[in-house]
Amino acid sequence: MTMPIEKPVYLQKVKQDNMSVLLQQIWKHEAISRVELVELTKLTSGTVTNLTQDLIQLGLIQESETSSGSVGRKRVMLKYNLERFLIIGLDISRTSYEVILTDLTGRIVKSAEGNTVGIHQPEQILDLIESHIRSMNHYAASRGTPVIGLGVSIPGPMDRKAGQLLSPVNFPGWENFPIVSTLESRFGLHVFVEDDARASALAERWYGLGRSVQDLLFITMGMGIGGGVITRGELVEGANGLYGQVGHITLVPDGQLCACGNRGCWETVGSIPGILNRWSAGHSIDEFFHAVRQGDPTAQQCLTQTLRDMESALTTLFNTYDPEIIVIGGRLYPYLAMYMNEIRAGVKERIYSFVRNRLTIEPATFGSSQNAIGAVALVFEHLLMAPLQILTAVKPAQE
Amino acid sequence: MTMPIEKPVYLQKVKQDNMSVLLQQIWKHEAISRVELVELTKLTSGTVTNLTQDLIQLGLIQESETSSGSVGRKRVMLKYNLERFLIIGLDISRTSYEVILTDLTGRIVKSAEGNTVGIHQPEQILDLIESHIRSMNHYAASRGTPVIGLGVSIPGPMDRKAGQLLSPVNFPGWENFPIVSTLESRFGLHVFVEDDARASALAERWYGLGRSVQDLLFITMGMGIGGGVITRGELVEGANGLYGQVGHITLVPDGQLCACGNRGCWETVGSIPGILNRWSAGHSIDEFFHAVRQGDPTAQQCLTQTLRDMESALTTLFNTYDPEIIVIGGRLYPYLAMYMNEIRAGVKERIYSFVRNRLTIEPATFGSSQNAIGAVALVFEHLLMAPLQILTAVKPAQE
Repeated sequence: MTMPIEKPVYLQKVKQDNMSVLLQQIWKHEAISRVELVELTKLTSGTVTNLTQDLIQLGLIQESETSSGSVGRKRVMLKYNLERFLIIGLDISRTSYEVILTDLTGRIVKSAEGNTVGIHQPEQILDLIESHIRSMNHYAASRGTPVIGLGVSIPGPMDRKAGQLLSPVNFPGWENFPIVSTLESRFGLHVFVEDDARASALAERWYGLGRSVQDLLFITMGMGIGGGVITRGELVEGANGLYGQVGHITLVPDGQLCACGNRGCWETVGSIPGILNRWSAGHSIDEFFHAVRQGDPTAQQCLTQTLRDMESALTTLFNTYDPEIIVIGGRLYPYLAMYMNEIRAGVKERIYSFVRNRLTIEPATFGSSQNAIGAVALVFEHLLMAPLQILTAVKPAQE
Repeated sequence: MTMPIEKPVYLQKVKQDNMSVLLQQIWKHEAISRVELVELTKLTSGTVTNLTQDLIQLGLIQESETSSGSVGRKRVMLKYNLERFLIIGLDISRTSYEVILTDLTGRIVKSAEGNTVGIHQPEQILDLIESHIRSMNHYAASRGTPVIGLGVSIPGPMDRKAGQLLSPVNFPGWENFPIVSTLESRFGLHVFVEDDARASALAERWYGLGRSVQDLLFITMGMGIGGGVITRGELVEGANGLYGQVGHITLVPDGQLCACGNRGCWETVGSIPGILNRWSAGHSIDEFFHAVRQGDPTAQQCLTQTLRDMESALTTLFNTYDPEIIVIGGRLYPYLAMYMNEIRAGVKERIYSFVRNRLTIEPATFGSSQNAIGAVALVFEHLLMAPLQILTAVKPAQE
């Protein structure tokens, strides 16, 4: 039997995969020695030595001050070089945008936001955003810290492979828009795009409540209801990129027709338009909660129904996804915050008794910037998974 | 910086992981050359040569007749040695058991089944099963083909780490029963246990409709309604082993209290007891479908509601799990088979229009033996994931 000569492209792939394993461990432990990396990753000491050297040369990690080991000897620790690279996160919603420049940990360095009500031309919206991204790029260049990528959070569903949106509900003008190629050619950056709810889940995965958890469900409640499911530490995509369409579980049998095609979806009664529709059309969500506080009986009844629906939906979702933690965010969340203890109690009464004390339900970590931080986390995740691919394409920052 | 000496235990782990990668590829392709294995796995040719040699020595794979390659040269193909090892699968349901002896492909060599109605002592049920397993073991020994493990499918939920059941609904006597250690000491075999619905999903994953699919949802409908979710080719467990409790999605707001703690679960109206309860207590499911065929209006109305509920539930589950295929099995399925086209059409009308032509809904591959085949698949999966662990403990078959 003759064996083929090693193919360099495979070796490059193996190298990158091993780097990824090391980067994930360094992220998890914040600071870690090479000896510990060998123990945790099962890579040989030679591989760890070589790859960490490469990662130091790439500027991604650095040796930190020596720290004393268990027997008093000093050890060299490795950690991320947080000063060296920046990331841009862009959130485009149906009515506004937010752009942030952050370090690798998602710490915001610069930010900008704006209103897009009434603008249904993607190119026009990108025109509004362009100056912010250019100025962030300039800022990064002036400090010698290149931007490694631009993450985008936007309403789904989308075709990730083609880098374009499909036909997002209630988001005219964006059908089939080739967002990845358009932004790449405008800015010369690596561009990654994700559904807003899933981007938000990634924000928790890498920077928030998901750092120490393997199974997490993120739910965003606003003009729609969306979800992102982290299973065994990974965001799940599904066969058609539709995994975790939690707003489209049936809650009201033979209920209102939803834009997705189903009837009685949770979104039709639990989102902001859903609540207002059930209460009294033509009002705002502020007015609704004001009426609740004023003791308006129809508003209070509508709120009660909304909370019971939410308990029912969260119970269904617990039984389907079995998460360790459910995180809830979105524009509606601040209004619901004061009812969360009641909702938690309602859900815990309805799930299997042996897990009642294990489930936690928490608010999203990053409030109104959750989507934008999620867009950053998306780039960060790609950096961890494919560091060579991301970093070798980064142009040295120039003024 | 000093590096530690390689630890043999890590190398053993790496070796087994690489073997697992090779075994999965050989399974997927049925017959494959070493050259192709190198290309597909990115392992070095030396590693592939050494590990396949080890696997041949273990008796798990064999070189097959040379087959002609693209340029007319003969190539040595590797494939599973299907004659060399056997697996026992045991299904314990609330009213019966089934034991099967199969080869590595799940082909049944021997089988036995029996009734357990009224017996609520696990040890008594195991007494009934014991002679079958012993005679299968003897048969295997007489042919010189050792049994590599005993897989068990049983109603959940369970604590997999502890190897014992928790408190399965409607299954008296089995609470906290240490099934794994009990069976291991009775039979001296590796024992693996899984929830019946999830075992059934594994049957599809390794031997059925899941062989060419990454994302599959298995639903079993009978005395209860259970599910098993395959995502990216792997059965998902969840934080508490509860992932895929599809029978416990809320279908009827403020509906009947379910044993799980929730109200209005699909199981309360869609399982055999659920249907009978809604129709007219005290009858059997045979009588119900007989009444439907006779044109009994209350039975027909109840059936219509059952089918609409099923469409609603399947739509919810499609939107949560985004599977490529939904497979339905269980004792109730044969009665529903004639309505499946109607159900398919109902679901397709309710899911996102762009995926309508992609989703398929199919019957389970193994009919009434689905659970037992699933128990076999569970052992087979462990063999593929940890071949050294499974095979080195197998005693040579003796008469």
